[in-house]
Amino acid sequence: MTAAKPTPPEAPRTTPLSYEQAGVNYDLIDPLKVSAQRAAAATAGHLAAHGFAEVAASRGESAYVIDVGPFYLASIVECLGSKAIVADEMAALTGRSWYDAIAQDTIAMAVNDLITVGATPLVVQAYWAAGGSDWFGDAARAQALVAGWKRACDSCGVAWGGGETPALAGIVEGGRIDLAASCTGLVNPKERLSVGDRLGAGDAIVLLDSSGIHANGLSLARKLVERLPQGWLTEVAPGLSYGAALLAPTVLYAPVTEALWRAGIAPHYCANITGHGWRKLLRHASALTYRIHTVPPVPPVLRFIRQHAGHDEREAYSTLNMGAGFALFVDAKDAERTVAVAQAQGVGARVAGVVEAGPKQLIIEPLGLTFGDDALQLR
Amino acid sequence: MTAAKPTPPEAPRTTPLSYEQAGVNYDLIDPLKVSAQRAAAATAGHLAAHGFAEVAASRGESAYVIDVGPFYLASIVECLGSKAIVADEMAALTGRSWYDAIAQDTIAMAVNDLITVGATPLVVQAYWAAGGSDWFGDAARAQALVAGWKRACDSCGVAWGGGETPALAGIVEGGRIDLAASCTGLVNPKERLSVGDRLGAGDAIVLLDSSGIHANGLSLARKLVERLPQGWLTEVAPGLSYGAALLAPTVLYAPVTEALWRAGIAPHYCANITGHGWRKLLRHASALTYRIHTVPPVPPVLRFIRQHAGHDEREAYSTLNMGAGFALFVDAKDAERTVAVAQAQGVGARVAGVVEAGPKQLIIEPLGLTFGDDALQLR
Repeated sequence: MTAAKPTPPEAPRTTPLSYEQAGVNYDLIDPLKVSAQRAAAATAGHLAAHGFAEVAASRGESAYVIDVGPFYLASIVECLGSKAIVADEMAALTGRSWYDAIAQDTIAMAVNDLITVGATPLVVQAYWAAGGSDWFGDAARAQALVAGWKRACDSCGVAWGGGETPALAGIVEGGRIDLAASCTGLVNPKERLSVGDRLGAGDAIVLLDSSGIHANGLSLARKLVERLPQGWLTEVAPGLSYGAALLAPTVLYAPVTEALWRAGIAPHYCANITGHGWRKLLRHASALTYRIHTVPPVPPVLRFIRQHAGHDEREAYSTLNMGAGFALFVDAKDAERTVAVAQAQGVGARVAGVVEAGPKQLIIEPLGLTFGDDALQLR
Repeated sequence: MTAAKPTPPEAPRTTPLSYEQAGVNYDLIDPLKVSAQRAAAATAGHLAAHGFAEVAASRGESAYVIDVGPFYLASIVECLGSKAIVADEMAALTGRSWYDAIAQDTIAMAVNDLITVGATPLVVQAYWAAGGSDWFGDAARAQALVAGWKRACDSCGVAWGGGETPALAGIVEGGRIDLAASCTGLVNPKERLSVGDRLGAGDAIVLLDSSGIHANGLSLARKLVERLPQGWLTEVAPGLSYGAALLAPTVLYAPVTEALWRAGIAPHYCANITGHGWRKLLRHASALTYRIHTVPPVPPVLRFIRQHAGHDEREAYSTLNMGAGFALFVDAKDAERTVAVAQAQGVGARVAGVVEAGPKQLIIEPLGLTFGDDALQLR
C-alpha cells in the first residue's frame, strides 16, 4: 500500500474551467435546499402518532433514520446525474451500450449514502424516467441497464423491489433517461448506528479507494471534452479512452461495511465522498480537525481532468474524489484491521489520517492544503 | 350518496384521440418491464443473508414488502409524470405558481401506492430533478413546491426525510422539473397486510372519490388542449378552467386507510386507480369477477376530456379514473362502515360493487361494460 505523490501543479493549457462554468450553480439551488430542509425538519413530529421517532442527528446526514423500536430504519433517494450522457456519447462512438456500468453507478449513489449511517441496505427501487417510450425500444441498451442493475444488487446483497419506468416526453429530453434509485435499509442491531455521536479526537480516518470519477463532477468532465482533440476517445492512459475511464463504475462499498460489522468493527462515522470532493470529510457538524497524512493514488482520469481543466490541487480536491471514494472514521485500534477487511473485499484502503481536537478543518498535509469550516455548507 | 348516471355517448367533434397518439406506447415499455421484473424477482434471495424474506405476493403489487420480523417493511418510488408541464403552462397564463398542487400529486402517487399493501407511510423522500440550476432561482415557485410538499406530508402524517435536488441540464429539459417521491412504511401490526390473500367472493368493493384526473392521463389531456378554442383557459364548468381543473390535487388516501385500521377494519385488498383507469380493479392475480352496480359521479374535467377526445365509455373507463381514485375490497359486513369512515375523513365514498366467484373480469353494470382477463397485463 503506497501513497501517491502529490501531483505537481501543471500550467493549464487554456483558461481554467470552473465547476460553475460547467453549468451547476449551487447559489441558486441552496436557498431552496435550506427552505426544504426546514420544512422537512418540521414534519418529524408526525412519527410520534405511530409510536416512533426520528433520529435527529441524521437530519442533514446522507440518509434519514427513524427509530422504529427493535431497529432503526434508514431511507434515501439518489440520482445518477448527468453521467448517462457520457454513456450515450460513448455508445455512439463504440457501438456498444455502457448502461450496465451506469446502472451500477446509480445504485452506488443510493447504497453508498445509505450505509454511512450504519444501515444494511435491504431494498432498492429503480427510477428510470425516459424521454419517451422509444427509449425502451433499444433492446440491447435496455437489457444492459437491467443486467447492470441486477448485478449491482447482487454485489450489495439487496433485493430489487421494483420501480418506475415512466416515459416523460416534454420533461426528460428525447433520447435521454433520468436514472435514480431509492434504497431502504435497517440499522440492526441498533449499536451499528453511525451518525457521528461517537466521532472524536483520536479516531483514525481510513479512506477507501475510488475507481475513477464515480458519479460526481460529470458536468465538468463533459464540459472539458470540448477541449480535447480526440474528444471522448482521447487517451488518458495507454489504451484507455477518456470516455471509458469516466465510465468505470462507482465502487459499491456496502460489502465493506457489512464485512466490518461481521469483523466486530463499528465505524464511528462515515462520509461518502461525492459532490464537493474531499470537503465531504468535513461533513459532520462537530468541531474537529481532520489531519490527513497519506493520500491515495489519483486515478488517471482524475489526474487528466485536473490537468486539462487547469485546476490547482485545492480546486481538484474540493471538487473531485481524487482517489478516495468513501471515508471511515474508526477507533484507532481498529484502523489497520479496517484496511485489511476492506482489502479482503477487493477494495483498496489505507489509514490516511487522524481526527484531532481543534477547530473544524481539514488539513491535507502531503499537499499543503487546509479547508476551513466555511468550505462546506450542507445544512 | 348518489350514483352518477352514465354519461350518454356524444359525437366526437373531430377524430378520436387515443392514448397512444398522445405519446405513450406501452408496447415499447412493457418488454423492458417484464425483463426488469424477472431480474428483480431473482434478487429476493439476498434477504435471507440478513435474516429476512420478501413477501412474494407483493411482487407485481403497488409496493414491495419484506418481512423483517416484528413487522413488514414496504417501499416504493413513484413519479409525477407530465403534470408539471400543465402547472408550467398555467403559471404562464395566470401569473401564479401551481407547484403547491403538484407537490401533493407527487406525494399522492407514492403514498397512495404504498398504502395498498396495508402499510402506514412513515417517511417520504423528495426527488426534484430540474433542467438546470436556474429552475430553483424562481423563489415563488420553489416556495410553493416546498409548501405543498410539506402540507401533503402533514396530511398523511409522514416525516419528510430529505431528498435530492439535482440540476440535470441535458437530461431534464430546460425550464422543466422531474418530480418523484419515494416512500417507506411499515405494515404494523402484521395483520394489516393486504396483498390479496384474503380477497374473495362476497367481498364488497368500496370506491373512494377522486378529485379529478389526479396524475394519470395527463399526456392525453395535454394533447387535447390543442383542440380547445381557449386552450387551457377553456371552461369545463362555469368559472373553472380546463387547466385549473386538471390541477386539482390528487386525493391523499392515507388518512382513510389509517382511520379504517383505528376503526378495526382491515381491507382484504386495495387498488390505487391510476394508469389503465378502472382496469386497475383487475389488478390482483386471482380469478374473480368484480361486479360494479354503482358508479361514482364523473368529475367535470373527466367528462370534458371524454367528450372532446371522442372517447366511448369503454375507452374512458379503461384510461381515466372517472371519479374513482382508490378501491377498497372489504368484508361485506364492513362495507357501509368503510364508507362512513372515509366520509368522516372528508373523502367521498360509496359501496360500488361486489366480488364474485367466476372468471376474471370486471363488469360495470350501469354502463354495460365488461373488461376481461386480457384487459390488464401488469406482470
